[in-house]
Amino acid sequence: MNPTLEIFSQGEEIVTGQTVDTNAAWLSQQAVQMGFTVTRHTAVGDNLDGLIGLLREISARADCCICTGGLGPTSDDLTAEAVAKAFGLTLEFDEIAFAQIKRFFDNRKRPMPESNRKQAMLPAGAERIDNEWGTAPGFSLLHGRCWFAFIPGVPFEMRHLFLEKVRPALAGRFTLQPGRLVTIRTVGIGESDIQQRIAAVMIPDAVQLGFRAGIDDVQTKLLFPYGYPETEMASLVSNIAEQLGSAVFGIDGLSEVSGDLVAVIDRLMQTRKRTLTVTETASQGLLAAKCIGMPWLLGTLFDRSLDSLGQRFAVPVDRDDLMMTAERIAVAMKKSAAADFALVQLYAGDDGTFHDKDQPIVLYNVLLTENGFHQSTQTVAGPIRRKQNQAALLALDLLRRYLQLQEI
Amino acid sequence: MNPTLEIFSQGEEIVTGQTVDTNAAWLSQQAVQMGFTVTRHTAVGDNLDGLIGLLREISARADCCICTGGLGPTSDDLTAEAVAKAFGLTLEFDEIAFAQIKRFFDNRKRPMPESNRKQAMLPAGAERIDNEWGTAPGFSLLHGRCWFAFIPGVPFEMRHLFLEKVRPALAGRFTLQPGRLVTIRTVGIGESDIQQRIAAVMIPDAVQLGFRAGIDDVQTKLLFPYGYPETEMASLVSNIAEQLGSAVFGIDGLSEVSGDLVAVIDRLMQTRKRTLTVTETASQGLLAAKCIGMPWLLGTLFDRSLDSLGQRFAVPVDRDDLMMTAERIAVAMKKSAAADFALVQLYAGDDGTFHDKDQPIVLYNVLLTENGFHQSTQTVAGPIRRKQNQAALLALDLLRRYLQLQEI
Repeated sequence: MNPTLEIFSQGEEIVTGQTVDTNAAWLSQQAVQMGFTVTRHTAVGDNLDGLIGLLREISARADCCICTGGLGPTSDDLTAEAVAKAFGLTLEFDEIAFAQIKRFFDNRKRPMPESNRKQAMLPAGAERIDNEWGTAPGFSLLHGRCWFAFIPGVPFEMRHLFLEKVRPALAGRFTLQPGRLVTIRTVGIGESDIQQRIAAVMIPDAVQLGFRAGIDDVQTKLLFPYGYPETEMASLVSNIAEQLGSAVFGIDGLSEVSGDLVAVIDRLMQTRKRTLTVTETASQGLLAAKCIGMPWLLGTLFDRSLDSLGQRFAVPVDRDDLMMTAERIAVAMKKSAAADFALVQLYAGDDGTFHDKDQPIVLYNVLLTENGFHQSTQTVAGPIRRKQNQAALLALDLLRRYLQLQEI
Repeated sequence: MNPTLEIFSQGEEIVTGQTVDTNAAWLSQQAVQMGFTVTRHTAVGDNLDGLIGLLREISARADCCICTGGLGPTSDDLTAEAVAKAFGLTLEFDEIAFAQIKRFFDNRKRPMPESNRKQAMLPAGAERIDNEWGTAPGFSLLHGRCWFAFIPGVPFEMRHLFLEKVRPALAGRFTLQPGRLVTIRTVGIGESDIQQRIAAVMIPDAVQLGFRAGIDDVQTKLLFPYGYPETEMASLVSNIAEQLGSAVFGIDGLSEVSGDLVAVIDRLMQTRKRTLTVTETASQGLLAAKCIGMPWLLGTLFDRSLDSLGQRFAVPVDRDDLMMTAERIAVAMKKSAAADFALVQLYAGDDGTFHDKDQPIVLYNVLLTENGFHQSTQTVAGPIRRKQNQAALLALDLLRRYLQLQEI
């Protein structure tokens, strides 16, 4: 059994929503990778009774707790006082902490405000965590079953202190057995579709299965326990990937990192030294925007009017055959841009349909390569920004499928 | 005394740190504005006992709780089951919820997987919260002293459901004394610049000052307590806005909602019945993508090669005078697209410079209108995606400044 760990964030700016608590996610990733089971995140404001209650709760419940925030010099920084009250300790002046705080101000040629003296008061018996990146030292102590580490909430100080001070302490104190996370990344099928397709695969109880619907893909996540046999791991992953078929564009964590859809396309385009030119409609620039930094994308064009698009390339527009129209545009565009590939996406329905909430639209994608035309047709629905994003992804996915098929 | 409210997020992806819990911050802001005191955020994973324990804790402690996540169709979506177990309720099949789920799939012309049936099982006595934006309905119920609302964790569904269903229910159920939040929205200056510029303005202790650096703007937030005199509020806001000058593109919460930069531009373009055509370089489609749904944007063009861009419009390219080159392109493009305005953005430095982390690039923006040329030059730095985003915003901001200047 992994030791359990909780994340506790203190700060009025977090509970009131002025600051998104990115520290909690970052610390959790670190802890999971080390072999902890993260059981809970809690954030409370600057309220002494609330803090005392929460510290007592956690000390009875978790093996370890990383706490951020509340170590500053102002009156609403209550962590040390709350720890002392919660666990019946006195606060003691720490000479070394004080010297460090003073040095921080000396180095910046600024006088130390009297209020910063407070930051040198630590609960009796706590171990100081030296902070070379800011004024507030952290501290750690054991109470009940739980080992607590208190560090500042400023993200860059927090990360330094965790990596250089807290992580080594955790590794020394706990017997950890890190698991292996494998992520199967798909595009074009939803979470419930995936669940149905893989229902037939026997997944051992020891393996944790999870899903995550992100902006640019849906991820099927398998967390394998420490020491799980490599060959069984590979075989289970490949069984699941097989059920999902060509919707799988990459697998992270097994032998390599595939990255996101654009990263996968990038590797294939660069290896094969191909270039691409694009005409976008429903995605309105978002397809190209997603490919920022990719040298193989020569250009994109968005034109609100299909008639004007046809005129631009001197091809006839047939609204009853958008696939044929897209093919004509692809031919003209590939030639004028001197690109290896041309990707054209048109959609059925006027602007009104596209903008209507939840109103589905039908996408017609054409990819023209050295091997001729490749097509796909999809229906997307939902709010306009979702349709826009799906349109960009599905057009890119036509390219990805072609490139990966060539690989085999 | 304000009623207390807690935020509870369910999901393995949150406690393991794969997803940053942005919902908690967003919901907290909404709740604080309504007049709640947000006391705690908690996130737990997909663990039935953990969920049950937490629900019981909260029901004894808070007046209200907004819970997100765990309403999906898969086996790790445990919220409804946990609620039933925690509060001694049975799960009942909800015909109307089921019909809505089925309709969601019918609209997308996809068969409904059997697993989605589970999403129609709601705790007995709960009130269904209809969800027109996704498959999972939410629900609400009162237990102990606490009124709970359970809504999906997918951010866009969550926001819609909160604003259109949960917020009205809260307003009807609780006696609230909401503060007034006024947001001054700026583009092109940073948080520390803003702080320096407004340092001279006397802000009363009762008014809470905060900052938020978003993707598309920097927001200066003033939270006024319930009953704060209108005239004093207006005078303080206008004092601060004056210090920030033309960087202010909108003020929300005083007399009206200005919305984001694109919304501000949209109102002005629609009122004046103008159309726009764009050439993008550093933003690579993102400028147009941000304007999705705006009928006045006729088209955009991104071309990786400046020479090819020049050829396309039959204008000479002068790398030592990018502003002049942009002006030439603007003239040719405005004519060929038959648009009222043409907006062209070029940048100094080859692709390598642009992609280098933190390497600054210089942007040259030209807007051609009925009143001739309007230019701006800016330097942006940082990771490539930040430079891309800033490039899109700063070009759009040139248009905004022109339109607002015409208003005066």
